Amino acid sequence: MHKTIYISAPATIANLVCGFDVLGLALESPSDPMQLSLSETDGLRIHHTDNYALPLAPEKNVAGAALLALMQEWGKPIGLDLVIHKTIKPGSGLGSSAASSAGAVAGANHLLGNPFSKEDLVRFAMNGEKVASGVKHADNIAPCIYGGVTLIRSIHPLDIVPIEAPPMHVTVVHPQIEVRTSDARQILRKEVQLKNAIRQWGNIAGLVAGLMKGDYNLIGRSLEDVIIEPVRSILIPGFDEVKKRCLEAGALGGGISGSGPSIFMLNEHRQTAKTIEKIMQEIYTRLGIEHKTYVTAVNHHGVRLSDKPFTEPTH
Amino acid sequence: MHKTIYISAPATIANLVCGFDVLGLALESPSDPMQLSLSETDGLRIHHTDNYALPLAPEKNVAGAALLALMQEWGKPIGLDLVIHKTIKPGSGLGSSAASSAGAVAGANHLLGNPFSKEDLVRFAMNGEKVASGVKHADNIAPCIYGGVTLIRSIHPLDIVPIEAPPMHVTVVHPQIEVRTSDARQILRKEVQLKNAIRQWGNIAGLVAGLMKGDYNLIGRSLEDVIIEPVRSILIPGFDEVKKRCLEAGALGGGISGSGPSIFMLNEHRQTAKTIEKIMQEIYTRLGIEHKTYVTAVNHHGVRLSDKPFTEPTH
Repeated sequence: MHKTIYISAPATIANLVCGFDVLGLALESPSDPMQLSLSETDGLRIHHTDNYALPLAPEKNVAGAALLALMQEWGKPIGLDLVIHKTIKPGSGLGSSAASSAGAVAGANHLLGNPFSKEDLVRFAMNGEKVASGVKHADNIAPCIYGGVTLIRSIHPLDIVPIEAPPMHVTVVHPQIEVRTSDARQILRKEVQLKNAIRQWGNIAGLVAGLMKGDYNLIGRSLEDVIIEPVRSILIPGFDEVKKRCLEAGALGGGISGSGPSIFMLNEHRQTAKTIEKIMQEIYTRLGIEHKTYVTAVNHHGVRLSDKPFTEPTH
Repeated sequence: MHKTIYISAPATIANLVCGFDVLGLALESPSDPMQLSLSETDGLRIHHTDNYALPLAPEKNVAGAALLALMQEWGKPIGLDLVIHKTIKPGSGLGSSAASSAGAVAGANHLLGNPFSKEDLVRFAMNGEKVASGVKHADNIAPCIYGGVTLIRSIHPLDIVPIEAPPMHVTVVHPQIEVRTSDARQILRKEVQLKNAIRQWGNIAGLVAGLMKGDYNLIGRSLEDVIIEPVRSILIPGFDEVKKRCLEAGALGGGISGSGPSIFMLNEHRQTAKTIEKIMQEIYTRLGIEHKTYVTAVNHHGVRLSDKPFTEPTH
């Protein structure tokens, strides 16, 4: 009993424009390589090979908290050694903690012979999100586990609906500034105008229909957020210019990834996604803000597992 | 030039539970028979064979206002004689005015050789809704013209998205009380809690996905309105009991049709729809409120046209 599974846990975009708190999607890159091994020594040990100084005590580590939930439901004593190398930067708005939690429980499920459903895995991984942000969110975890675009129709009870989506290319820019999730949440008003809420639910209905029909034009028309983005985007320098110029260059639409500061744009064609990357780089270089960009695609499979190490980032 | 077209214009349900102001569906019955004839005498003449004492001056009649908009865009002088026999009671919440407007312009378009698109027809018919309620709504007109379930993603600009839906049986009860659309609108708060709005847009996303997947269970789970129904249902005696008992009897879900007072329930099976009709009748009989019920189905074709009179209601 010394089995090891190699894991590639993808970045995810939550709060998909008009789908605040309910719609997310998985990306091909960046992704975190992880390694989980069954051990003859009971209990859970976590090792980080990155330099983010994340807590290693299982109950304080997001992957650890997720695995502890799984181990408790499994019931029998097991030993697990987890090695994490984070490439998805914590605080980027790209679902860093969700990747750790979801990757860990997907790997453990495989090592145990797949006793758990995808919904179970989301449930376990939500304990990791609670460690990270104090709240049991599922909107990054669900796309990380299921792949593609997922709807969290309800948290209590948990109701995850995979939404079919056509191929899409995604450009992401991560301006290296800090936006705390708690700040991003506090800035939101607790009440919204009914007329804006109506416009928002017209848009999310259009977005779901556009994704399932594979109608890029309808997807583009529906990628509008009249409630969250106007408030939160003020925390992200350059946001308005990025969005305006990317739309002019042919992006379908996009917005703030998670609670920021990353900004993403969805595109029908890879060439547009690359043009847009240059626009994003040009804007943040001019603003003097360090940044990292990704040109990637929607990931339709979620966490990848392999008996051999992933030699390079999958994208 | 003395061509006549016979029209059957269906009732519609707007404000489809969580889809307030954006989602509607067409019913097989009730429907209004209409008759539209080209005449050698220019202008528009309207005749009602029902007893609702509706205005006959074209600019004050909902079908008239719709036809005038079409005639203006057509540009050339034409003569039209319209005969309307309303069976969809005005003020029932079943899209009575939309049926008149939509039926009239669909018939005229046929007589003129179909120069106009469905979207054009919706645009013309919205002038009828303006006469009826002071506002250019499209959420009854669009399903009346397109059939099935339609999403009005946006009014300005007009963006109509037909949503594929599986076969569904619909039970409707129209308690014969008056709920004025203007009252039903004034009772709504202008602001709503963000957490309720999020729940609502999770539900409408789930409903659209459920309809397009043909997943009756997901449709049922998503038929929840946490914003409008709790406020408006107090205007409809018996509402809570009707809803509770219909759900217990196996209805997928339902709610207020339009701004009421009619209540509808969607069902997977016709037998359930008939069981539910009995429950509705029992409740309103006990409450001593006159009522009319319909057991019908989603109408997937919209307005019907024929060269011969419709001999009986289509259902």
